[in-house]
Amino acid sequence: MAIVPVILSGGGGTRLWPLSTPEKPKQFLALTDDRTMFQLTLDRVSNAEQYAAPIIVANSAHAGLIENQCADENAIILLEPCARNTAPAIALAALSASDPKAILLVMPSDHVINNVAAFHAATQAALPLVEAGWLVTYGITPTGPETGYGYIQMGDALSGGLQSVARFVEKPDLARATAMLAEGNHSWNGGIFLFRADVYLGALSVHAPDMLAAAHKAMAAATHSGNRITPDAQAFAECPSDSIDYAIMEKAERVAVVPVAMGWSDVGSWDALYELNAKDDTGNAITGAARIEGASGNLIHTDGIRVSIQGVDDLIVVANGKEVLIIPRGQSQDVKKFSS
Amino acid sequence: MAIVPVILSGGGGTRLWPLSTPEKPKQFLALTDDRTMFQLTLDRVSNAEQYAAPIIVANSAHAGLIENQCADENAIILLEPCARNTAPAIALAALSASDPKAILLVMPSDHVINNVAAFHAATQAALPLVEAGWLVTYGITPTGPETGYGYIQMGDALSGGLQSVARFVEKPDLARATAMLAEGNHSWNGGIFLFRADVYLGALSVHAPDMLAAAHKAMAAATHSGNRITPDAQAFAECPSDSIDYAIMEKAERVAVVPVAMGWSDVGSWDALYELNAKDDTGNAITGAARIEGASGNLIHTDGIRVSIQGVDDLIVVANGKEVLIIPRGQSQDVKKFSS
Repeated sequence: MAIVPVILSGGGGTRLWPLSTPEKPKQFLALTDDRTMFQLTLDRVSNAEQYAAPIIVANSAHAGLIENQCADENAIILLEPCARNTAPAIALAALSASDPKAILLVMPSDHVINNVAAFHAATQAALPLVEAGWLVTYGITPTGPETGYGYIQMGDALSGGLQSVARFVEKPDLARATAMLAEGNHSWNGGIFLFRADVYLGALSVHAPDMLAAAHKAMAAATHSGNRITPDAQAFAECPSDSIDYAIMEKAERVAVVPVAMGWSDVGSWDALYELNAKDDTGNAITGAARIEGASGNLIHTDGIRVSIQGVDDLIVVANGKEVLIIPRGQSQDVKKFSS
Repeated sequence: MAIVPVILSGGGGTRLWPLSTPEKPKQFLALTDDRTMFQLTLDRVSNAEQYAAPIIVANSAHAGLIENQCADENAIILLEPCARNTAPAIALAALSASDPKAILLVMPSDHVINNVAAFHAATQAALPLVEAGWLVTYGITPTGPETGYGYIQMGDALSGGLQSVARFVEKPDLARATAMLAEGNHSWNGGIFLFRADVYLGALSVHAPDMLAAAHKAMAAATHSGNRITPDAQAFAECPSDSIDYAIMEKAERVAVVPVAMGWSDVGSWDALYELNAKDDTGNAITGAARIEGASGNLIHTDGIRVSIQGVDDLIVVANGKEVLIIPRGQSQDVKKFSS
């Protein structure tokens, strides 16, 4: 049975400000490739032998962007009238699956995966447990003591190389992250999931019945226009807002992690993008019109205005529209404050 | 007899790039005041009891800017068909003076003078020697070992507090500048002059007769339109190009310097402008739309685009039109390379 990709496009667009904005968040930008993050996500699951047409869950304000960037006429586009975090978004998708037992591959639309073969191999490894009713999360093998990610402590070995989840760990401080790396058996929580639609809905009925009821009601009163589905606004507004991790994964019984090393990043900051980008001989990563004299280690990303720098090192310079941001590399977690 | 201001507006617009450009060089920008440098220069010599209407010598490409920024209907506007440096520009002005013995106060249009009273006092002190046929240059009392200015070594005392010129010193290195300050009796060459029109033309006839002949020819064939005078392009193109310092002041006999401390700057770089500008509590000098978080000692000058900085110190950030420049303070002498 073909896997149904569920692509979550709810990102708000604050962490890569001023390039990403609420009107055009990160997933709709071409940051690491000619294709946008959203297009790269679609392309990863475009093989018709393995994957059915995707279900895309997006902010209704981005309907035009979605349609411009998705060529698949069979894609189902679920337009959320308001944001209610990931658990309800995935509930809408699970309720839209034509087969109740459809296997859903739930993915954020704005992550980088450099080793797509490893991603597919992990999915294949997880399928037997998923078919047997487990909820599987992808555990990214850590490459450093990142403090910007949640972690998963892995427990007993299961079949296919999967492991049970001992516990989920919130974003740690550096000491805690370093300790987990030294300890081993921890992975990053990548926000990617594989499970049967009916298993997820069953878990919701146990752990978040109000959420399931609201999602049902919103879908029952949804408006349809071609392949666009807009859940009823009032019903969906009454849905509790929660993440799949909090609402389901931390509470459900048969939860497994599939460990995978796949060159993954959530591109959650300009610093993360600097790490991903190609650099010149002196470590400058340049996108757009720029002139560099005696300057090293800078990230320049400009959409129009030309940036001329001399004698400055390790800066992040981002120009977009009527805004230009200048901060040192290593401090890009603080960009949010400028975005509002 | 009223003094005739001669305002030289030949600047090329490279040192304060990207704000100043060949199309709109420094003198036409409001950098230190609501008024532009050119307007501030006019206003300094606008007292009708002391000053006649000005003669403005400008690049013909800037005729519109000159007329927009000069309200004096009696001003004579000499539009140079090509640039030939200061000595020919002043020759055109001297030939345009209605009285051959008119006293000309020659000033660049893009300098700051904070103590205008001291400037006027110096002019008054110089008048007796000027009326007696001397060529007077204003010697600015140095406030530091600047390497961006030419210096004047002052010689014997003359009447009125003036001194003879022992010699002109090219822009020195820091050691030489420091030595001159320690030695005393040196001033900065401010490029401001006071002399009779006939005395200047007489000096030209002795030291630069080809220049005088070409200027004569260009004015004889000039076209007139209202108060605009455009010297003949072909004749003026044949004029040798030279500065008044090289062509006349270093060669003529009766040359005097009037020492003056008047808060002068040629605003020759972004660093110089930073020194002149008002700063906030953490030493940021801001013009235009900017947001600052934990950043000190920065000069931000933006014309439209909003600049958001955090955690960066002692930078010069200048945005104008489709360009943004980022350099450390102290390195703004190198901006020229970006301007072409």
